[in-house]
Amino acid sequence: MREFELIQNIFQASVMASTQGRGDLLLGIGDDCAQVQVPPGQSLVFSMDTLVEGRHFPFDADPVDIGYRAVASCVSDLAAMGAKPAFFTLGLTIPESDPQWLAGLAQGMAELAEPIGLALVGGDTTKGPLTITLQVHGYVEADMAVKRNGAKVGDDIYVTGLLGDAAAAVPIVTGELQVSSERFDYFYDRYWRPQPRLIVGMALKRVVHAMMDISDGLAQDIQHILKASGVGANIDASRVPISAELSRWQPESAVTLALTGGDDYELCFTAPKDQAEEIALITQTLSLPCTKVGEIVTEGFVIQGYDGEISGWQHF
Amino acid sequence: MREFELIQNIFQASVMASTQGRGDLLLGIGDDCAQVQVPPGQSLVFSMDTLVEGRHFPFDADPVDIGYRAVASCVSDLAAMGAKPAFFTLGLTIPESDPQWLAGLAQGMAELAEPIGLALVGGDTTKGPLTITLQVHGYVEADMAVKRNGAKVGDDIYVTGLLGDAAAAVPIVTGELQVSSERFDYFYDRYWRPQPRLIVGMALKRVVHAMMDISDGLAQDIQHILKASGVGANIDASRVPISAELSRWQPESAVTLALTGGDDYELCFTAPKDQAEEIALITQTLSLPCTKVGEIVTEGFVIQGYDGEISGWQHF
Repeated sequence: MREFELIQNIFQASVMASTQGRGDLLLGIGDDCAQVQVPPGQSLVFSMDTLVEGRHFPFDADPVDIGYRAVASCVSDLAAMGAKPAFFTLGLTIPESDPQWLAGLAQGMAELAEPIGLALVGGDTTKGPLTITLQVHGYVEADMAVKRNGAKVGDDIYVTGLLGDAAAAVPIVTGELQVSSERFDYFYDRYWRPQPRLIVGMALKRVVHAMMDISDGLAQDIQHILKASGVGANIDASRVPISAELSRWQPESAVTLALTGGDDYELCFTAPKDQAEEIALITQTLSLPCTKVGEIVTEGFVIQGYDGEISGWQHF
Repeated sequence: MREFELIQNIFQASVMASTQGRGDLLLGIGDDCAQVQVPPGQSLVFSMDTLVEGRHFPFDADPVDIGYRAVASCVSDLAAMGAKPAFFTLGLTIPESDPQWLAGLAQGMAELAEPIGLALVGGDTTKGPLTITLQVHGYVEADMAVKRNGAKVGDDIYVTGLLGDAAAAVPIVTGELQVSSERFDYFYDRYWRPQPRLIVGMALKRVVHAMMDISDGLAQDIQHILKASGVGANIDASRVPISAELSRWQPESAVTLALTGGDDYELCFTAPKDQAEEIALITQTLSLPCTKVGEIVTEGFVIQGYDGEISGWQHF
C-alpha cells in the first residue's frame, strides 16, 4: 500500500499545480470518477494514445523525455482539431515503482502540460510491462472543430514546420548510431521534444478546410484526408520542408524521411487559394514555417519528383 | 496495413450499432479526435482503468469474458457517481492481431455496452503485451454526482448485492481448483459477469450522502469514504451479505472473502436513517438485495465479529 500511495503522491503533486482556479474541473483524482463541466458554447474533443516501451520509444530512455513526448504526441491531436487543451488522464503500467523514475516522468509531463493549461485529472496505475496510455481532452465550439473530410478540389496543401528530423533521429536515440555531439543534440531534441502546433491550430480553424497531424509520415497521413474528403492530391516532393541539418547529414534520403518518416507531429492542412495571405500572416506572426507542398485534385495521389515507397509507420 | 485495418473494421462494426441516433456524439472514430456535445444541464464524469493479462485477469481467458468484464468493472465507477453511461474509449495493446480473438473481445464489450447505451467512440491499438485500458464517460447533473466525502455521523452504511463470490472464484477461473460443474458455472459467472449497479446508482443519487463501488474489498474500500469524509465506522461482520453458494462451499472463510476479496463491483453507500424506507422501496422495486452493514461514527474503524486482516486487493 505504501508504494501505491507513493505513486499517487508523486502524480497528485503535479496535478494540484495545474487544476487550481479552474472552474471547469469539478472533481479530480481521488473519487470513483473525475467530473468536468464543459464551458458553455464549447464541445469536448479527446484522443487516446498508447505508447509501448521498445515499440513507440526506446528501452531505458530518460523518463523526463518519455513523459514530455507522451503528452506532446497526444496533444498534437488536439492541435489538429483546432481545439484548446483542457485536461488529461493517464493509464500507467510499470514493472516496478521506482520513485525517481516516476518523478522524472511526472516532471516531463508537467513541462509541457503546465504551460498549455492541461491538467492531470485521473487515471490508473498498474503493474506490468511499461505501457503508457494517455487521453487528452480539449474544448472547441461544436461547429468549429477541423475535420479530415473537408478538403475541396483546388485547395492548397500546407505543412507546418520541418519534416523528417524525428525519423532520422531514431538510430541516434536508440544508441545504434554515434554522431558528433552537435548533431546528437539537434536530433535528440527533434525526436524527444516535438512542439505540438496548438496555437497555429486554433488560429487556423476558421481558415482551413481539413487538417490532421502528421504522426506516421506525410505521404501516408495525407491519404486519410483524401479518403475522408473523396478527393485526390498532387504533392511536389521538392517543396517538402527539410531542415538544413538533415539536408547536410543525409542529402540522399532526406526527402524519403520527410515523406515517410513518423513522429513529426506537425500539422497538414488544406485551404482555399484565397486564404493564402491570411495563412501567411498567421504563421509569420507565430514565427512558424508553413509551406505549400501541393494541391487537392479530383482524384489520384501523385508525389512529383519522388519514386520511393509511400507507406509510413506501420501500427501493427 | 491490412491487419491494422482489420482491427479497425472489427471494432468499427460494433461502434456503428451503438452511436446511431445519438445527438451528443458529433464525431466518432476516424479523425484526430472524437467530439462530444455534453447535453445541456449535464456534467461529464469519467474513469480510466487498465487491465493487465495475468494480473487483472487470467492468461488465455475467453476474449468474450475479458471484454464484458473490462467494460463492467470500469462502468461500475459511473454507477458509483449516480451517472448515466454515455461513451467509452479503448486503448488495446495486443501481442498479435488474431481476428477471432478480437471479434470475441468486441462481442463481450458490446454485450454490456449496447444495452446500457455506452458507445465506443475512439481509442488506439498497439502491439505489445496484452493490456486493456478503458475510459468510460457518463453524464450527471453537476451538483448531483455522488462523491466519497459526504458521509455524516449517524448515517447507515449499506451494500448492494452479495460479496465475496468473485474472490472465491479466482482459483476456479485460473484452473487451479477443480469443482463440480454446478459450482463451476455459478462462480465462473460471478467472476466474469459482474453487474454494474447503474440503475440503482442513478435512483439513489438523491438519497445518499456518499457512495463508491467495491472493487478492492469492502473493508479496504470503505476506508476511502471514511478518510474523504473525516468520519469513522462500525461494521457488523454478521450482517455482510453472502451468497448461499459461498456459505455452503466455504463456511469458514466466507466472511473474510466478503470483507477483503476484490472484484465484487457492488455499491457501498451511506445515507441518513430517515431514508431507510425510501432505500428499501428503490432496491425492492429493482429486485436488488441491499443490506445495512453498519453505521458511520465520529472516528475509528471497527468490524465487530471479525478479527482477520482488513487489507484487500493490493494494486502494486
